[in-house]
Amino acid sequence: MSNRPVFVVSDRTGITAEMMSHSLLTQFPNVKFDVTTLPFVDTDDKVSEVIKQINDAGEHTGVRPLIFLTFVDDAHRARLLDCGGVSFDLFGTFLDPLEQELDHKSSHSIGVSHGIVDPVKYTNRIGAVNYAVHCDDGLNVRDYPSADVILVGVSRAGKTPVSLYLAMQFGVHCANYPLTDHDLERSNLPPALEDYRDRLFGLTIRPERLQQIRQERRNSSRYASIQQCRYELSQAEQLYLRYRIPSADTTSLSIEEIATGIIQKLRLKRDIY
Amino acid sequence: MSNRPVFVVSDRTGITAEMMSHSLLTQFPNVKFDVTTLPFVDTDDKVSEVIKQINDAGEHTGVRPLIFLTFVDDAHRARLLDCGGVSFDLFGTFLDPLEQELDHKSSHSIGVSHGIVDPVKYTNRIGAVNYAVHCDDGLNVRDYPSADVILVGVSRAGKTPVSLYLAMQFGVHCANYPLTDHDLERSNLPPALEDYRDRLFGLTIRPERLQQIRQERRNSSRYASIQQCRYELSQAEQLYLRYRIPSADTTSLSIEEIATGIIQKLRLKRDIY
Repeated sequence: MSNRPVFVVSDRTGITAEMMSHSLLTQFPNVKFDVTTLPFVDTDDKVSEVIKQINDAGEHTGVRPLIFLTFVDDAHRARLLDCGGVSFDLFGTFLDPLEQELDHKSSHSIGVSHGIVDPVKYTNRIGAVNYAVHCDDGLNVRDYPSADVILVGVSRAGKTPVSLYLAMQFGVHCANYPLTDHDLERSNLPPALEDYRDRLFGLTIRPERLQQIRQERRNSSRYASIQQCRYELSQAEQLYLRYRIPSADTTSLSIEEIATGIIQKLRLKRDIY
Repeated sequence: MSNRPVFVVSDRTGITAEMMSHSLLTQFPNVKFDVTTLPFVDTDDKVSEVIKQINDAGEHTGVRPLIFLTFVDDAHRARLLDCGGVSFDLFGTFLDPLEQELDHKSSHSIGVSHGIVDPVKYTNRIGAVNYAVHCDDGLNVRDYPSADVILVGVSRAGKTPVSLYLAMQFGVHCANYPLTDHDLERSNLPPALEDYRDRLFGLTIRPERLQQIRQERRNSSRYASIQQCRYELSQAEQLYLRYRIPSADTTSLSIEEIATGIIQKLRLKRDIY
């Protein structure tokens, strides 16, 4: 049987629609889908093209395409709801009941979702991303006074992606500091971190997974040996315990899950972008 | 009148719910909201606590709280749908009709949305994020053969955040290369980019905005003068024209919009995380 064609269609970036449809479709692990994302469908001509593409896919496969929509333009949305596929109107479904409950008409303004809504917040977000790069991997410790959180952990425990995600998604200023052999031998908090104890968050990972990640970089080095990984992680975890640094094991968590946990544990403000 | 209390509640990270509710609420610019996000609400006790918090907010403000939900657990979802607020079941609303159309029961498995669904894809995503940091700002040009796209532009045109977003959201391997005074004077493509002409994407920005951004870093320097900004941008734009490098003006676009445009123009594969 053919894969089920899926179209994610939006008059803006399609990112919200993509995340929602992805969440929904992963609930059906036994069905195979062919997903096509079509962003910026914001003119009559583009809508016509998309409808043709959807109907062609339906004819070609013999099954009705699923269509996940986030449209702000009512006329364009209506045309897509009315075409040959099975439509899920991710946005419009909730707009009418919201209008009723709030007793306000919605602005139906285009581009407010992933566009720049609030320039001050947006500038803060970009600032946070630049800060995370600027203070990646122990760089520029003199700028730690501006940190909301400083991630610590051994090399390759996942500090960089989590720092960047915290910045990008939540506007959090996050530095990260690698625990080196030298730091781990001393069993003391590195001096650069002393003044920021209440902003530290430790990452750890299972030794076997760390070994695997390190081997991809430097195969058969001491750095990538299981002994070294075990030693470093055990020292790091002792450091977290001794200094009461909250921590998380990144082995089977996604960066979204780790970042959300950090925000929650450190009670950081969670901005939405 | 009190702000309308809003609760974004999820048994996972709440990120999808947060993005959806944010999109919906920005359609009501004249209503003031107090938004609280409550992630990882995944036990009976936590659900009880949240319901109490919601009902308290309703009593305190005298208006019914809005509740945006993404729950995979049916029992927990049912309790929240039944509490004192006005609930919007962002996930469940679409699950029943999807089950019917697909003629499959959904797995109702927890954590598949922003957890690690596919380890290979997840590893690729983390690899892309590390690549973007590794190849930020003209670093490690020897690793350009692995790039899906190389962003070019003058200093502070927005290359770094867009590179990181492309990596984080779409798993795209993106390097970025700063056009220096030296490059701009030559009016030729920098030698490091010669072999990758079909993967280049140029960023530009309005001179006044660039000046503003540069002044925040180095006030009253030549670097931040309007003359210098105008000169660099005009030289850069001529370079894009001469070498037919597709480009975008980042002045009033969000990183989501720029990244989506790049994916579309260069016809890159758009992975979903």
